[in-house]
Formats: sequence, structure tokens, C-alpha cells
Amino acid sequence: MTIVLGPNQFGKAETRVVRVHRDGDRHALRDLNVSVALAGDLDEVHLSGDNSAVLATDTQKNTVFAFARKHGISSPEEFALLLAEHFVSSQPTIHRAKVAIEEFGWERIPATGHSFVRTGQEIRTARITHTAEATHVVTGLRDLVVLNSTGSEFWGYIKDQYTTLPETRERILATSVTAEWRHAGAFEDSYDTVKAVLLDAFAVTHSLSLQQTLFTMGRRVLEEVPGIAEIRFAMPNKHHFLVDLEPFGLDNPDEVYYAADRPYGLIEGTILRDDVPAAEDAWTS
Amino acid sequence: MTIVLGPNQFGKAETRVVRVHRDGDRHALRDLNVSVALAGDLDEVHLSGDNSAVLATDTQKNTVFAFARKHGISSPEEFALLLAEHFVSSQPTIHRAKVAIEEFGWERIPATGHSFVRTGQEIRTARITHTAEATHVVTGLRDLVVLNSTGSEFWGYIKDQYTTLPETRERILATSVTAEWRHAGAFEDSYDTVKAVLLDAFAVTHSLSLQQTLFTMGRRVLEEVPGIAEIRFAMPNKHHFLVDLEPFGLDNPDEVYYAADRPYGLIEGTILRDDVPAAEDAWTS
Amino acid sequence: MTIVLGPNQFGKAETRVVRVHRDGDRHALRDLNVSVALAGDLDEVHLSGDNSAVLATDTQKNTVFAFARKHGISSPEEFALLLAEHFVSSQPTIHRAKVAIEEFGWERIPATGHSFVRTGQEIRTARITHTAEATHVVTGLRDLVVLNSTGSEFWGYIKDQYTTLPETRERILATSVTAEWRHAGAFEDSYDTVKAVLLDAFAVTHSLSLQQTLFTMGRRVLEEVPGIAEIRFAMPNKHHFLVDLEPFGLDNPDEVYYAADRPYGLIEGTILRDDVPAAEDAWTS
Amino acid sequence: MTIVLGPNQFGKAETRVVRVHRDGDRHALRDLNVSVALAGDLDEVHLSGDNSAVLATDTQKNTVFAFARKHGISSPEEFALLLAEHFVSSQPTIHRAKVAIEEFGWERIPATGHSFVRTGQEIRTARITHTAEATHVVTGLRDLVVLNSTGSEFWGYIKDQYTTLPETRERILATSVTAEWRHAGAFEDSYDTVKAVLLDAFAVTHSLSLQQTLFTMGRRVLEEVPGIAEIRFAMPNKHHFLVDLEPFGLDNPDEVYYAADRPYGLIEGTILRDDVPAAEDAWTS
Repeated sequence: MTIVLGPNQFGKAETRVVRVHRDGDRHALRDLNVSVALAGDLDEVHLSGDNSAVLATDTQKNTVFAFARKHGISSPEEFALLLAEHFVSSQPTIHRAKVAIEEFGWERIPATGHSFVRTGQEIRTARITHTAEATHVVTGLRDLVVLNSTGSEFWGYIKDQYTTLPETRERILATSVTAEWRHAGAFEDSYDTVKAVLLDAFAVTHSLSLQQTLFTMGRRVLEEVPGIAEIRFAMPNKHHFLVDLEPFGLDNPDEVYYAADRPYGLIEGTILRDDVPAAEDAWTS
Repeated sequence: MTIVLGPNQFGKAETRVVRVHRDGDRHALRDLNVSVALAGDLDEVHLSGDNSAVLATDTQKNTVFAFARKHGISSPEEFALLLAEHFVSSQPTIHRAKVAIEEFGWERIPATGHSFVRTGQEIRTARITHTAEATHVVTGLRDLVVLNSTGSEFWGYIKDQYTTLPETRERILATSVTAEWRHAGAFEDSYDTVKAVLLDAFAVTHSLSLQQTLFTMGRRVLEEVPGIAEIRFAMPNKHHFLVDLEPFGLDNPDEVYYAADRPYGLIEGTILRDDVPAAEDAWTS
Repeated sequence: MTIVLGPNQFGKAETRVVRVHRDGDRHALRDLNVSVALAGDLDEVHLSGDNSAVLATDTQKNTVFAFARKHGISSPEEFALLLAEHFVSSQPTIHRAKVAIEEFGWERIPATGHSFVRTGQEIRTARITHTAEATHVVTGLRDLVVLNSTGSEFWGYIKDQYTTLPETRERILATSVTAEWRHAGAFEDSYDTVKAVLLDAFAVTHSLSLQQTLFTMGRRVLEEVPGIAEIRFAMPNKHHFLVDLEPFGLDNPDEVYYAADRPYGLIEGTILRDDVPAAEDAWTS
Repeated sequence: MTIVLGPNQFGKAETRVVRVHRDGDRHALRDLNVSVALAGDLDEVHLSGDNSAVLATDTQKNTVFAFARKHGISSPEEFALLLAEHFVSSQPTIHRAKVAIEEFGWERIPATGHSFVRTGQEIRTARITHTAEATHVVTGLRDLVVLNSTGSEFWGYIKDQYTTLPETRERILATSVTAEWRHAGAFEDSYDTVKAVLLDAFAVTHSLSLQQTLFTMGRRVLEEVPGIAEIRFAMPNKHHFLVDLEPFGLDNPDEVYYAADRPYGLIEGTILRDDVPAAEDAWTS
């Protein structure tokens, strides 16, 4: 046998850049956490420690800050694209750049021009994969926690020797949505629309399973928002167990729940258009 | 010398209870994390393991769930008061009850009656200390992250042999507010008003130091919201450093910042009315 | 276009099971966090909410506990294999099972038989992928934090317009090792040996780059531990910056360092034998 | 009423300093997280933003690094004392300094001189309070997770209308020990001895309650380690619930446990010598 180097990449992770855009007394903020990963002709650095093909991760960090000044940040996707293209086009040894971004939301404090409060709701995400041959743009969000206090059932599942769960026609359904959607063509910013569709689809779906809710959310995004090729979800079932109050002489007509931490169900699924080529590269970290 | 038992307490921490209040198809949620700590005649359990004075922490948890059913949850403070009074009045061996609560906020998904999304902004807190002699109610919040992109200076401080920080007339001021305010008399729910005053005071104060901003925030709460005896703050200075872009041939006219994690300045202070008796018991965990 | 369901799976994540093996007064512990993910004929649950192909995640959790009783836990890999085979063989609708395990280490408190203290060092991991056609076993660890206080250099890298990092012939090299290795054939437990090789290889390699250290660690594992097909690493460069003490009239002969949090370099790489078939399925979550 | 400023302090939190002590090829490491909090004549900074009494937190950070070079780090307590005395003695406006330190442990990788691996077990802590009048030294640890797989009972507690917990003569007892001990006089380093006594006392105590175990641990430290005035504990009851396997036709002879996260019992207590003056100041953050 021979021992060889397989797939590899390197980069600067989690550069925290805040960009203030000033329009007189009225400011706007973009607050990003930027992670870069580069791949290319990197055999020698692994085999002998020859760094001549390496763009130091410190340099990558500097580039993030410099680009924030030169280009501003109009969206995480566009900022990531600028960076990814720069790394690949400017360095002959770098053939693929991945840029992943988290964006933290801020809203203006009422009646002010340059004072902000973190929204704290979900985190917006973006990941770009760029080579000379292809560019993929994936937008997403995570930590969007939603709950329906009625309108959810769960029954009709397999009963085996280890099954004790009673069927139910009424339960709380809650999850923390992680969703990422791949743009079919050029990136267009439809983040707010997608978020609104996700919330509405979660809310209005009478749910027989979290899978059914997940699929409906994805289907509606693909139907209602143009330009999206596929959407992927990871949705933990944040279990809310109805507490048995009978030992205390009390009924519990779907009012008092225990919110459990672990274990939790985890539902993952992809919904896609059948007329768009697959792009597995777009999804690897 | 003799070795003796000093102050002690025990209780069930972090019972996660969700209470649904139903008004036909329109539901409301309270989502709490409840921690109880009881003190009393507990020498023997420590010295010999005699548990006859102990109200098991499992029983405390059950009580939280039962009370959520019997009394509902009109506010974290009122729910905590009910629990604390119950433990002290029902158990001869328990002389002091502390109940600390975190509340997670939810907002209705637009155009729905029983679908919710976590607001994710700040966490509301409450802590009640109850004995036969006195009851103290403290309301608070944490993780309220705010930022002014201008209107902050820092200069005129001590220069010693270890000082390298340049003075500035322009910086970003950002912090994550933890504030707790003690009610002078009976609890009245003015949470939303206090939060609004805190945000506004942070925003409109031209700041010469984070201490000055902190004091102004506290003073305004005491002036504008009746019934508050004192307010305590812990406010980390979430440093945003202006990036030096000169090595790249770029200026940086207060536009590109690096958001640092550690270390951070930490400013703590109390603002109080001088006509209300102190109550140190109200503040111990 | 048509909208279709793509890859999907579901399962119970993070079932925390502790198994006590008793040999008279001398006990042994295995402390696991078990996550199951199942795939199969799950179109209908997504499309219509028909759960007849679904093995409820609650049932999966029960199975974990029952199997811990029936089979004991000889290693996380063997326990995961038992579970994965059970789910696929017992349920006609389930065609693939993934079982991922974290194991927390305990060591005996000296001179006792059934008292333990968490080692706290690294977390051992295992992931099994099982279908009727193939079974893959991957063992690993994470959070193994290592540091060389000398014997590390970094120079000879690309200098572009954004490069400011000075070259160095002396630096601290520190990382938190995440490593996973795929067994070429049947699983044999060589965890302690692999860990020892990783530590030794990190320590004795005079490093010209973290990539070189990473490759050496992987090469030595493949050379010295039989039965391993490939090993994958993710190693953050935990930067320790030499503090400039000159403003205080002090030198700093490689003694005082600032340990930074973010950003950090992140180095990822695979080292593999060229005579073993690839198995990408083994690695997906 | 008048609104006044109450107790306040400010400082630099979480300066991460790593000090390498070199003895030829054999190095030693101290890895600290240092937090400083200063109090004094700080009214004006709060009231008017006049910073003339303020030692900038950036300067405090610089002092930490400079002192690590000048004095080395022989123990976290001695390093904290040097810093606290410096701040109070060198600045007329500063009257009290608190220095809190976390120390992360490293052990040498076998057969090497300057390669280390994080022990990962517990975190050592120190907190010093210094004024012109008095100095208090508190040593401690946290995250020391221990478990007895037998030798623990819990029965004889109060039964009220909310009690459902069955009594038990056999259970797992597990906790994550946070302990802090105040030195009666001058600091002497007995950390390893105290840790060993804590572990042994936890292990050998047949427990009728976690309170009894806690008291025994404290009593033994005070008896066996000279120079300690008092010790304070916070010990969560990390519940391990015996799983009911009867629905699956299995018994469970104290073998399979579910390790729960929340809620948890929390036991707090102080054990002290009656011949040493109290020092509440030593304990406030």
C-alpha cells in the first residue's frame, strides 16, 4: 500500500466584521462572521512543509476587512462571491474557494438614526462555492424557533416490541428551523420572502408528522419564490410533553407542558426541482 | 476549633414549563425556566443524612407544573410569588424560598391564532425572595445587545506606564445589557416600559464612557417608571476595533470594525433611590 | 418543473445512556450519547403524513436502552453496530441506519471500586453506516487540545497586497484535534493506540506548517495501526500571539502569549491508503 | 427622593494569558483567564463622564501581560495578588481590586519536554480581594464531575400532596463539583491535596443525601488541610434515572440509566471553622 493525501482545504474561520454604511446621520449595519476555506495545489505543504502555495490565513482575514471597505456589504452572498472570486482569480495555486457567512440581524431603536438592537431571532447564513468552472450560491437561516400550540397529530406509525409511545390527535409541534436553499442561477436576494413563506407554511399546515410539515415548507418555497433549485432542512422535534397532573387531582386539558432538551427527534430532508442539475459541491463544508 | 455548617439551600433548578392559555382558537403562551432554592431547618440532613426536613426537589418540580395548571401564569413574578409563598407556608421546616425565573418571549406568526415564533431578543428574568417577614421582587432582563455606531468618545483617563490605548472622540459603543430592578412595594408589571426606557436612554446618551451611559439608563428608569427602588447593571463593553487598513492603501473613515470576543471591559453598577431601605437579601442567588 | 422529495432521514438524536457493568464490588461504566438516523421508504410520510413506514423516534430511544441491558456496551462501535443492524433487519421500510455516538470517559477514583471521575480530556466518537449491502465503521475523537511551546515555524508563504503577517522561525503551535478514522475491514478496538500515536506524532514533528503536522499525524496512524483505511482531520490553529511588551520597556523572549479565540485558521485534510476502496457514505452525517 | 449611585466596579474581564517557563528544553506552562474588577472614586465617571479616575481596562490588560513577563506565574493566587496590590497601590483613585482567575491544566505528553495536552478535567479557580485594609484569598475548582455507581440512598423525606418520588435504597449519585475555599491566613498552595480529599470524601461516603456528602467533603477538607477558614460548594444533582425496561420484558438490576439534563437538584452549602472571622467581601464577584 501507499499512503496518500486526499481532499484537503485550509482557511481563516470566523472573522467577525461589522460594516457601518453612513448616509448622513442615518447609518446602516451589516454584522458578519466570515469563514473562508481554500483548496488547490497544496500537496507540498502537507508533505514537506513548503508553504509557497499557501495564502496565509492571516492574509485571508485582512482581505475580508479590506473588501468590506472597498466594496461595502450589500448582502452576505454578494460579499462572499467577491471574496471567493478574488482568492481563485488572484492566486494560481488556489482552485476552489468556499466562503461561509453568518449574519446577525440588527434593527433600529425607534426614533433614532444610528442606534441598534440585535433582533436575536434567526441567524442568516450564506455559503458560496467557487471554482473556475462553476459557482454555487446557497442562502439559509438557522435558530428560527417556531411552535404550533394545536393542529398537530401523530399516529399510525409502526408498533414493534420497543414501542410505548401512545398515539395522539393533539400535541404541540415545535422546532428550530435550519434551512438552506440553493439558487438555480444568479443570486437574487429573496431572504425576507423565503422566511415569511417558511413561517406561514409552518403555521397553516395541519400536521400529521413533522416530515409532512417540512415537505410542505419546502414545496411552498419552491413554488412561491422564483429561482430556487432546492432547499434542505434539519428540524429537531423540540418535544413538549403534556404533564400528567392526575397524581395531584388535576386534569391537564392541553395546557401544561414540559419542554424537554434531550433526546430529540431530528428530521432532515431535501425538496428540489427535477429540472435543475444537482450540485453536491454546493453543500459540502 | 469546631467545624460547623454555614448558610445553605437546596432546590430544583431549571424546570422548563410551557403554559398554553386558550381563548377559543386564539392561544397565548408563557415559556419559563423555573429554579427554586429553599432554606430552613436543614442541619440534620447535612450532619446525619436525616431527610425529614427535606422537601424533595422532585416534589418542587411537580409543584411548578401543578401550579401552572391551577393558577395559570400571568407573569413570571406572580408565578414565582405563588410558588415561594406555598413552599414557606406549607412546610414548617422551610423558612425562606427563592424562585428565579427566565422567560423566553414568543410572538404570534402573522395572521394566525396559535402559531408562534421565538422573538429571540432578550430574556426576561425574575427573582423572588420570600420569608415570613419579608418579600422582595426583582425583575430583569439579559442578552439585550445594543450598539451606537457613533456618539461615543473615550478620553481623559489615567495614563500610567502600561497605558497604550489612544484617546478617541469617535467609537462604536456596544454592550449586552443585563439589568435587574427591585420593586419598592407590591409588584406591578412595567416590563415593557422599562425595556423601552433602557433602549431609548442607551440610544440618546452621547457617551463619554460606558459608566456614564449605564448611570443614565438607570437614572431614567428610576425617574420615569414608578415603584422601582433600585436597578443593577452588568454591561460588558463589546469592543469593536476600527481596523487599520493603511497597509492596504485604504483609509477607514469609521466604517470597518473588528468585533472582538475577549477580553472585554465589564462595567457593573447600582443606581438607587435614597428613600427606600436596602434589601441585600433580594439579590443573593 | 416538478417539485420532488430528495434525500431524507429521521431519527432520535442524543439519547444519553449510562451502562453500569458490575463485577462484584468493582464496577465499570460506559457513558454514551447515541444518535440514530434512519432512511428508507419515507415518501408518503412527507407527502401525505401517512406514518405507516415510520419507526417512531421514541421507539428508537427505547431500543437504545433495551439493547444496553440485553447486550451491554463493550465499545461504542459494537453497540452502534447492534443497533444499526437491528433497525434495518427488523423493519422492512428502513433501508439504511446511521448511528453516531459520543463517549465520555471516566476513570476510577484511586483505591475505590465504584467511584469515578470524568477524565474530561477528549471525547471519543463513533459513526456506523449500515445497509443490507455494506457496513462502514468510523472511530474518532474530538476536543483533544495539544500545544508545542517550541519547534514550530511558519515562513515561505505567498505575499500579496493583503499580506502583513511576519514570517517566524519560532512560534507556539496549538490545536484542538478532531480526527476520525475508517476501518478497512471488521472493527477492532485500537482507540488507545491511535490516540497515543496522534499525541506522539504531534509532539515530535518539527513543524513548518500545521498542514505538515496534520499529514504526519495521519501517516503515522496508517503506518502504525493496522486495519485503518483512511483518517480525516479538522484542526483549528489555536493562535497564541507573542505579546509586544516593548512599550513597557520589556523584552519577550518567547514567554508571554495571548491566546486568541477568533478568527482562527482551520486546516482540514484526509490521509488514506491507495489500496482501499473509497466509501463516501461512511462519512455523511 | 434623590437618585444616587450605589456600589460599582469596572475592569477587564477574560484576558487569556499563556506563560511559558523555559528550563532548557524542558518547558512548563501556565494558562490563565484573568478578570480584574476595580472600585474606588468613580462617582464622576458615572455622573458626568469625567474619566480622570479611570484606569482604562485596556491598561489593565496590558498590565496582566507585563506582569506575566516580569514576575512569571508561580500560581494563580500569587499572580492575582501581585496584580491586585499593584492596582490599589499605584492608583490613588482605586481602593479595591478583585482579581478572578481560571486556570486550564496541561500535562506533558509522555517522553517530551515541550509538548502538552490539556487535562480537561476540572478548572482551577482563584479570586483575590484586596484593599489597603485587608486581603482575602479564595482558591477553588469547578467542573469536577464525579459519580458513585452504588452506595447512595434517598428516603425519609417529606411527603406532601405533590410528592410522587419513590424512596430508594440504591441509586447513582453524580455531581459536578464547584468548590471554593478561603484561606485563613497567608496563601499556601495546597490545591492538589484539597482536590484529592474532595475526591476521596465523595467516593467513600455512603450517602443518604447529597447534602450529607457535601458536608462530609467540606468537613474533611477543613480537618485534613491546614490553613482553610471555610469552603463553599455548589453541587448539582446530575440525575441518572433507572430506565423502566419492563414494557420490553426486561428487568433492570441497576444497570441501565438515563442521564438527564434538566431540571436538576442544586445543593449549595458552606462549611466553616467557628474560630475564624467571617469575610463576606471575599466572596462577592
